Amino acid sequence: MGKTPAVSPLAPDIFPDLPTIKGARFAAVEAGVRYEGRKDVTLISLDPGTSIAGVFTRSATRSAAVLDCQEKIGTHSDAGAAIIVNSGNANAFTGKKGKESVNTIASAVAAKLNLPSERVFSSSTGVIGESLPHDRICAKIDEAAEALSETSLPDAAQAIMTTDTFPKGAGATVSVDGQEVHIAGIAKGSGMIAPDMATMLVYIFTDALMEREVLQQMVTALNKKTFNCITVDSDTSTSDTLLVAATGASGVRVTDKSVGFMEALRSVMLDLAHQVVRDGEGATKFVEVSVTGASSDTDAKTHAMAIANSPLVKTAIAGEDPNWGRVVMAIGKSGAPADRDLLSIWFGETLVAEKGWVSDTYREEDGATHMKNDKIEIRVDLGLGGGTATVWTCDLTHGYISINADYRS
Amino acid sequence: MGKTPAVSPLAPDIFPDLPTIKGARFAAVEAGVRYEGRKDVTLISLDPGTSIAGVFTRSATRSAAVLDCQEKIGTHSDAGAAIIVNSGNANAFTGKKGKESVNTIASAVAAKLNLPSERVFSSSTGVIGESLPHDRICAKIDEAAEALSETSLPDAAQAIMTTDTFPKGAGATVSVDGQEVHIAGIAKGSGMIAPDMATMLVYIFTDALMEREVLQQMVTALNKKTFNCITVDSDTSTSDTLLVAATGASGVRVTDKSVGFMEALRSVMLDLAHQVVRDGEGATKFVEVSVTGASSDTDAKTHAMAIANSPLVKTAIAGEDPNWGRVVMAIGKSGAPADRDLLSIWFGETLVAEKGWVSDTYREEDGATHMKNDKIEIRVDLGLGGGTATVWTCDLTHGYISINADYRS
Repeated sequence: MGKTPAVSPLAPDIFPDLPTIKGARFAAVEAGVRYEGRKDVTLISLDPGTSIAGVFTRSATRSAAVLDCQEKIGTHSDAGAAIIVNSGNANAFTGKKGKESVNTIASAVAAKLNLPSERVFSSSTGVIGESLPHDRICAKIDEAAEALSETSLPDAAQAIMTTDTFPKGAGATVSVDGQEVHIAGIAKGSGMIAPDMATMLVYIFTDALMEREVLQQMVTALNKKTFNCITVDSDTSTSDTLLVAATGASGVRVTDKSVGFMEALRSVMLDLAHQVVRDGEGATKFVEVSVTGASSDTDAKTHAMAIANSPLVKTAIAGEDPNWGRVVMAIGKSGAPADRDLLSIWFGETLVAEKGWVSDTYREEDGATHMKNDKIEIRVDLGLGGGTATVWTCDLTHGYISINADYRS
Repeated sequence: MGKTPAVSPLAPDIFPDLPTIKGARFAAVEAGVRYEGRKDVTLISLDPGTSIAGVFTRSATRSAAVLDCQEKIGTHSDAGAAIIVNSGNANAFTGKKGKESVNTIASAVAAKLNLPSERVFSSSTGVIGESLPHDRICAKIDEAAEALSETSLPDAAQAIMTTDTFPKGAGATVSVDGQEVHIAGIAKGSGMIAPDMATMLVYIFTDALMEREVLQQMVTALNKKTFNCITVDSDTSTSDTLLVAATGASGVRVTDKSVGFMEALRSVMLDLAHQVVRDGEGATKFVEVSVTGASSDTDAKTHAMAIANSPLVKTAIAGEDPNWGRVVMAIGKSGAPADRDLLSIWFGETLVAEKGWVSDTYREEDGATHMKNDKIEIRVDLGLGGGTATVWTCDLTHGYISINADYRS
């Protein structure tokens, strides 16, 4: 792999037209944090009255910026807010100096935009363990502030990339009480040459008028079924960050009863989550794993993740091999309850195994045909209860090894 | 990958000279279960008075033979015993028919050797989900019984292989109360073309005179620090089996106070465990991960396994990249307690990181030099308590992908 990876074969054809979110403005500038000749710092300004919710990595070695966001996220303020993101350096495992960099950058943004620094959220993505050259970022804040515009979200989607192979965006327009509310989000993640940089960053904006607590509850709930249900390689970043900002500029009140809005937000989050998987390192197949009939939803997810993270299942998919024995193995090792003789397994629409053995109706050709698709569907019914889960992953290929083993050589 | 994989570059130079274990006799025959032109059925006869202990996979989808062994292992008998093993077919996920095959084979061996069938233990390793042609095995029991010999353990080590690249054996002679006791063991596992067959089977024999309960307690305890501390790819077989038989033929009584014997048994088990890792699919590096200073031994093992199973750590090792940021990441994701600012990390003798950042004394060349070795040592001190663990794994290479994704294409 060189430094210019091809675009993932699973990439969407185009970057979508995203709706404008009133109350949110965006800019991306070149600060030379690590990369030359490309935008690497994103500044986002949010009007007074904006509610912000966040979900962060649970890593015990999380980065300075994540720790700072977690301290700030639960507070209420009538002031505006800002988000600043750099790519190229994760500012993770950088000791006390990491925290100083976060504070310096937040203070500079706060001064320029006339905000309390508690309302400046930051993210960093890139290499771990190197000191963040925050002076380069601070030097560009004036330029970024002057460039802020409602229409520059696609620029931000580009600037937050590290070695992603395509920018990731998703949007929705939903009617609430007869009035339009807009949602637009961007994400980065999973297509890395240097996977120290395997950070997932997601920023979603809406002009809905929402209480912070309502927004946080909604985002936390939806995150469990979207971003927390994807895996590329089972390795968790030190810097994963999801921030959702509701500017209120539409004047349309959204509450926890607004099912239509929640569904629209879910669809944007799921779309971005799927794009992260589609840019998974070395991915050639997009894989959906559904588990039903488990003793609980938690058990269903344990089984689904055991299948989705199994190197043997993922390499079989890469080889277009309908190797259902490996699915049985993954269920067996997951640690959640399963009864061999009650299991059923489908590849796509084809029933492969049931009652503890291969199905009488299964023909290997049918399984093999399904495995040739770009999208692979594995479904397991455990026959134990009502627990369900669906997770998404990609296959494990020579591309993954090349990206992660060969890049320094 | 073709059907004749090269021998692992990490293989021992020679198969060891194993001591003779009086009271145990071995034979290997060609039954054509799946493979042509090689021995694939092993029969082992154990004299009356033999104590047998076992440890088995905890998979929820374990094979018919494993379930059968688990039922039989806890019983005491003054009768002799037998072990029969076939390679080529795992008889796993084969429904009720799987159990019938196990019973048929056990009955045939029992009749031939004049044993109760509860004293016949069986193992099967190979492809999952195909009916075991047990008639082919039963047809060879007479031939095997006639060939039984005290010196044929190396033949058995060959016959239990599926696509291992080398046979695995280890032995020890230890003095107990001034008298010699012998231990000899064989194992298979981890070098597979079709990793449905990724079963680890281990059989160890000693002429010590031991109570069954003492032997079982010793084996269970030692297993936790040997076979349960290795991982190739985090995927657990449906058929993993460890059986240890003490024939008593030496007349030397071994109790739970026999520290020397326990240490000798531990060394044999660890040697075999290491050989399984050295035959890991696609392995080019043997990796020891030691964790100290954890809150408990359990937490230490959780961290060590998170490092040893991380695809990003394993691909970095394959690329000879001293990528300590990925070690930090793996510790962070493991779920066990860690404090970023108390962590220290060594590659070999080189202190890489401490106090939440790269060490002042670390030079990248020193890390890079260590990574060129065949044996890689990663040590982490968490600075939290007295918990320790050591686990062993191999790197993740293009060879692994080739073996597991390409073999049907």
